[in-house]
Amino acid sequence: MPNEVRVIGVGGMPELRPGDDLAGLMMDAAAAQGTPIEEGDVLVVTQKVISKVEGKVMSIEGVEASPLAVTITEGHRRDPRHTEMILREARRIVRMDRGVIIAETKHGFFCANAGIDASNIPGDKTIALLPDDSDASARGIRDAVLARLGVNVAVVVSDTFGRPWRNGAANVAIGVAGMDPLLDYVGSLDAYGNVLHTTQIAVADELAATAELVTGKALGIPVSIIRGYAFETLEDASIQRLLRSGERDLFR
Amino acid sequence: MPNEVRVIGVGGMPELRPGDDLAGLMMDAAAAQGTPIEEGDVLVVTQKVISKVEGKVMSIEGVEASPLAVTITEGHRRDPRHTEMILREARRIVRMDRGVIIAETKHGFFCANAGIDASNIPGDKTIALLPDDSDASARGIRDAVLARLGVNVAVVVSDTFGRPWRNGAANVAIGVAGMDPLLDYVGSLDAYGNVLHTTQIAVADELAATAELVTGKALGIPVSIIRGYAFETLEDASIQRLLRSGERDLFR
Repeated sequence: MPNEVRVIGVGGMPELRPGDDLAGLMMDAAAAQGTPIEEGDVLVVTQKVISKVEGKVMSIEGVEASPLAVTITEGHRRDPRHTEMILREARRIVRMDRGVIIAETKHGFFCANAGIDASNIPGDKTIALLPDDSDASARGIRDAVLARLGVNVAVVVSDTFGRPWRNGAANVAIGVAGMDPLLDYVGSLDAYGNVLHTTQIAVADELAATAELVTGKALGIPVSIIRGYAFETLEDASIQRLLRSGERDLFR
Repeated sequence: MPNEVRVIGVGGMPELRPGDDLAGLMMDAAAAQGTPIEEGDVLVVTQKVISKVEGKVMSIEGVEASPLAVTITEGHRRDPRHTEMILREARRIVRMDRGVIIAETKHGFFCANAGIDASNIPGDKTIALLPDDSDASARGIRDAVLARLGVNVAVVVSDTFGRPWRNGAANVAIGVAGMDPLLDYVGSLDAYGNVLHTTQIAVADELAATAELVTGKALGIPVSIIRGYAFETLEDASIQRLLRSGERDLFR
C-alpha cells in the first residue's frame, strides 16, 4: 500500500472572539463536515485564530508612537502606531531597510514586522500580535481533544514568514504540542548504508507548509487536519527546539 | 465537501543510472502501486534522482583540490576534493565559518555546500551535484507525462536546504514546470475586505515541503504525487520567480 498522507481543511468555523473555546469549535467543525478528529492526526492551527481567542487582536488607536517609530515609518505606508507595536514586540532588530523591519521577536522568532500583521482581521486600525506562548496554546488544544474525544493528536501552530534569498513567504511552525518538531537522522543510515552526518529535518515547519495548501490566505479556513503522518510523540514538546542558538547562527 | 489534498509516495522504483528514463519509471511505479498519475497532479521529484539520471553523480577521486580548498577544509571532516567541488559549483560565498560554507550556487540558489551532498548515493568518495537546469528537468517530465498519458501535471524538483535562524532543514523547490511557483495575493481581498498588500506565497516550496512527509530521508521514496491541489497553470514556469534579486535582499 502506498505511503499516503491526507490534508483536510476544516471549514465552517464561526468568527472567533476572545475567550472562545477554539478547541471545541474545531472539533465541532471537523465532525460537522464529516471528518472528525482521529487518533494520530496532526492539527495545524493558524496563528491568527489563536491570537483572536487569546485576545491578541488590538486597536492601534490608543497607542502612542515613539519618536523612533515615527522616524522609521516616514515615507512608508505603515501607521507609526503600528510600527511602535512592532518595536515593542521585538527583542532585537536584525535588519531595518526600505520599510521592512526584520526582528527577533520577544518569543525568539526571526521574521518581518515582529510577527504583527493586519490581514484577516476586521478594521483598518486593528493588528494581531503573536500569541504569548504558542506552545501552551498548542498544548491546550491537544489536551482538550484528548479530554473530549479520547484521542492523541499533535498540534502545530503555524504562521506565514518570509525568508532571506527567496521570494514569497511560506508557513512555518511557531508552537507545537505532542510531537518532536525536529526529526533527527544524525547517525542513522541512508539507503546505501552511508551514515547521515548532519541531517535534521524541521518536520513541524513542513507540516505547517503542508497545511497552507488547504488553508490558503483568503479562504477563511483556519485549521487543517494532517492524517497518516507518523510523527514522533513527545510530551514535553517545544518550538524552542527549532530556534537556532545565536552561537550557531551565521545570519544575525 | 471538505477541501482535501492527498500526498502519495511513489515507491518501488529501481536504482537509477545516467540516461535512465526517469519519467517513464515514475509512471510505471505509480501505476504499479495502484495510484496512476492523473490530470492535475503535482509530481514532486527529489533532486537526487534527477542528478542520478542526468549524470551529476561523480567521484571526487580525480579532482585536484586547490590551495584554498585545502586550507578551508583543515580541521573539518570533509575531503578537500569535496570542498573543491563546492567552490566550483558556487557563484559566490555568502558565509564561511565553522566548516559550513553557505554559497550562492551558479544556478542562483542560496544553500549550504553549494547544494552538493553525499547521502543516498553509493560510495564514500561519491558526491551529487545539483542538476544544471532543474526547470528543464521538470519540463521534461511534464512533457513525457503528457505525451504518454495525455494528462497535464505540474512538476516540482525538490531539495533539502537549511535556513538561517531555525534548526533543521526543510524541502524547497529548485525547479518547476507547468505551474506558477509563486501565488500572488497582492491586491486581492481577505475574508474581511482588507486589501492584502504584500502577501506572496511560495507554493512550490510548500509543495516540496509537503512531499517530504512521504518521501523522507531514509525511505528510498524519491517521488510523490500531490493530488487535489488546484495550482495555477503556467506554461513558461521557472524557479527564477522564487529567487529574490540582490537589490531586494537584506542577507547577502
